[in-house]
Amino acid sequence: MAKEKKLVEAITSMNEDFAQWYTDVVIKAELIDYSSVRGCMVIKPAGYALWENIQKELDARFKETGVENVYMPMFIPESLLQKEKDHVEGFAPEVAWVTHGGMEELPERLCVRPTSETLFCDFYAKEVESYRDLPKLYNQWCSVVRWEKTTRPFLRSREFLWQEGHTAHATAEEAEERTKQMLNVYADFCEEVLAIPVIRGQKTDKEKFAGAESTYTIEAMMHDGKALQSGTSHNFGDGFARAFGIQYSDKNNQLQYVHQTSWGMSTRIIGAIIMTHGDDSGLVLPPRIAPTQVMIIPIQQRKEGVLEKAEEIRRTLAAAGIRVKTDDSDKSPGWKFSEQEMRGIPIRVEIGPKDIEAGHAVLVRRDTREKVTVPFAHLAEETAKLLEAMQKDMLERAREHRDAHIYTAETYEEFKETIDNKPGFVKMMWCGDEACENKIKEDTTATSRCMPFAQEHIGDVCPVCGRPAKAMVIWGKAY
Amino acid sequence: MAKEKKLVEAITSMNEDFAQWYTDVVIKAELIDYSSVRGCMVIKPAGYALWENIQKELDARFKETGVENVYMPMFIPESLLQKEKDHVEGFAPEVAWVTHGGMEELPERLCVRPTSETLFCDFYAKEVESYRDLPKLYNQWCSVVRWEKTTRPFLRSREFLWQEGHTAHATAEEAEERTKQMLNVYADFCEEVLAIPVIRGQKTDKEKFAGAESTYTIEAMMHDGKALQSGTSHNFGDGFARAFGIQYSDKNNQLQYVHQTSWGMSTRIIGAIIMTHGDDSGLVLPPRIAPTQVMIIPIQQRKEGVLEKAEEIRRTLAAAGIRVKTDDSDKSPGWKFSEQEMRGIPIRVEIGPKDIEAGHAVLVRRDTREKVTVPFAHLAEETAKLLEAMQKDMLERAREHRDAHIYTAETYEEFKETIDNKPGFVKMMWCGDEACENKIKEDTTATSRCMPFAQEHIGDVCPVCGRPAKAMVIWGKAY
Repeated sequence: MAKEKKLVEAITSMNEDFAQWYTDVVIKAELIDYSSVRGCMVIKPAGYALWENIQKELDARFKETGVENVYMPMFIPESLLQKEKDHVEGFAPEVAWVTHGGMEELPERLCVRPTSETLFCDFYAKEVESYRDLPKLYNQWCSVVRWEKTTRPFLRSREFLWQEGHTAHATAEEAEERTKQMLNVYADFCEEVLAIPVIRGQKTDKEKFAGAESTYTIEAMMHDGKALQSGTSHNFGDGFARAFGIQYSDKNNQLQYVHQTSWGMSTRIIGAIIMTHGDDSGLVLPPRIAPTQVMIIPIQQRKEGVLEKAEEIRRTLAAAGIRVKTDDSDKSPGWKFSEQEMRGIPIRVEIGPKDIEAGHAVLVRRDTREKVTVPFAHLAEETAKLLEAMQKDMLERAREHRDAHIYTAETYEEFKETIDNKPGFVKMMWCGDEACENKIKEDTTATSRCMPFAQEHIGDVCPVCGRPAKAMVIWGKAY
Repeated sequence: MAKEKKLVEAITSMNEDFAQWYTDVVIKAELIDYSSVRGCMVIKPAGYALWENIQKELDARFKETGVENVYMPMFIPESLLQKEKDHVEGFAPEVAWVTHGGMEELPERLCVRPTSETLFCDFYAKEVESYRDLPKLYNQWCSVVRWEKTTRPFLRSREFLWQEGHTAHATAEEAEERTKQMLNVYADFCEEVLAIPVIRGQKTDKEKFAGAESTYTIEAMMHDGKALQSGTSHNFGDGFARAFGIQYSDKNNQLQYVHQTSWGMSTRIIGAIIMTHGDDSGLVLPPRIAPTQVMIIPIQQRKEGVLEKAEEIRRTLAAAGIRVKTDDSDKSPGWKFSEQEMRGIPIRVEIGPKDIEAGHAVLVRRDTREKVTVPFAHLAEETAKLLEAMQKDMLERAREHRDAHIYTAETYEEFKETIDNKPGFVKMMWCGDEACENKIKEDTTATSRCMPFAQEHIGDVCPVCGRPAKAMVIWGKAY
């Protein structure tokens, strides 16, 4: 079996080459495959099942806050894209253009949506008349296209899947509240479901979304110390409303502009799961998001009673609401162990003739490889507990790793020394001037990740220019 | 309220102008809106919620048969589209072409997928090596683009949402079995969930999918007697496998071509729901697919205790698993009734001070407008029963309507007379020659909808040409 041989070769070790380790895991855990379309990926069943679980969890959280789903066209006429000046400048250089429909040249080029602010604005301009029509709390699940030069699976591809929420409100306060609310939905989801701790904060003007008044972000630290922007929420003020003429009559019959927000999370987050939790044996999936939580692996499965017992255990666990499968293929147990580990399935249940005789099964945690022997009578209960414990420990471990890699710099020398030599984030004061951000990027390739909501006072001046500091910024190299 | 006035105007009556009735309902029930992108629609919350329920039901049925979801790129390089001759001839005239990415012209044009056979084939060619890799049972939920000249909401638009399943099998028999299996999944879904009776059959060669060996279809009859093709399932034999080189080594280590199928259902089915069940007051949704099954409308809602009782009823029904809402807006009850009817919400619960005094609520069925008075103690139970009954009756009524509009023709004169004057389908024998299909289309605009699996013997010859008959065909005018 040529394919099997390929899998048993060790994947590149993280410490040796983190980028190669990532690619190896993505491919060998069968999350994606490359396609004949340059820069686009095929999301395979294991990868898509992860995305389906993410969708299910997020969608329920959105709907709890009153959000409704809609679907906008995938094309944006060039004239529509150009209505908001900053927005078009930000996106036009990286869109794909449709110029022909069937055999005919189109009268106006259409871009394939890189994001849908312009379409939602166009829609709201028709839809909103009175204060009674507000707020509009819409979201869509779709794919978007950005013509990137260099691409990497999940992290940066020419087409990716995401959700984009777009809301319109009567007041600036309400829009601001919604912007923060959705950032918190993302942050809670990352921590509770994906076991990824995140830093909540605001982007600097240089890093904010094209057309936004302010952009809030959640930033996660990957195992190699680099940052991954995991979700963003934008407050547009009334900028788009003015560009698109979205007005409503208030209770006094006066015309007012709406205030808008947008917020998105994409398949990029799958990259964050991999790089936060993975190890040299492959993926490690947090139990709450794992499509399969438990893999039962029969030992000496041809011996009488083994497969029957495995099936009995599968039914018991499934009845307890656990997502469980049995690997009864004709591969060797050792091979099956490697596969289950590569795919990051949280718990493996080993069951062979000796276990059956002894009246127990062996449970192995994917993250710690800790083994516990559990009597058949307590299997469902103990498995559920183990899944809970693993979920909690994974978040804790990720938080410890992150906190151990956040440094503080009081001088620019110290900053450069740290950022160049220690993987991780550096906290440093900042004057608010883009010139200092640019200098830091030139000198170190690090960027401002965010001005965290939890500000600390590290000093009075910006160590780069010596002028008075306005905020503490988290700096880091980023995906 | 300018908007409210618009709604109270009666929608065009079905009998007066069916096409205009359809458009009125689609817009006034707030399923879609037109967009600035010609030929594309905005699917609004009420329309998208319907699609979400369709997805949920279908997806569960697919997964029960072993199907897994994946995601392929939305672009197809021109050279890939051209690999299968019949396929490219069928689709090339109606695709949208991307020619530029960012500021640069692409080295090769990419079409926006009109369907994804070529991408799946390209993927399977890399993925399939041995008989152990088979079958591949993949599906994707996505949007596709076909550059139609004339468009109508849901029925024909330049972009639409759908699912496309693509499978690869070791043998021709297995592929044939899967093709039929998925057609039956669609048919059962239409009948059980959408209350739309369908005729299962095979397409003639003229009407089959570009590149298929055989296409199976389910055909529904709309209220105006016209046919709507509601789902199709294609057996490709090994045609695509040969064009794309998809081979596996069998148990004897011999290289074999795979046999493939594909099958799809789209947002078009929402058009079928509207045109099967709707009436002159708007939509009528089958309870099993309705996003909201019950709307509670308080009467004299400012009187003490009314809103409280409405809320109590809402909780009771929700606890019984019924999808229920209360309309406590400041509109008049009569206005709320019209809205609930326009949106097709299956049951309305009327509750006012007199009802509270009498200890009951009034339930009104959307389809028959039948009113029943139900004591509070039995509300959950009776509402559930009523929803069941309505679901069953809607299917029955649609079946009666359809069966009353299927005619038999033994001569071509009789056929033309019937098809020109009576809305509905006509059963007639056919010789198997495309020339006779073409003549019928020219003479009457009717097309062969299918050769139903349930064949009848109506005569020995094809009434058009007089040659021996090969099959009974259902003919009709179609959407």
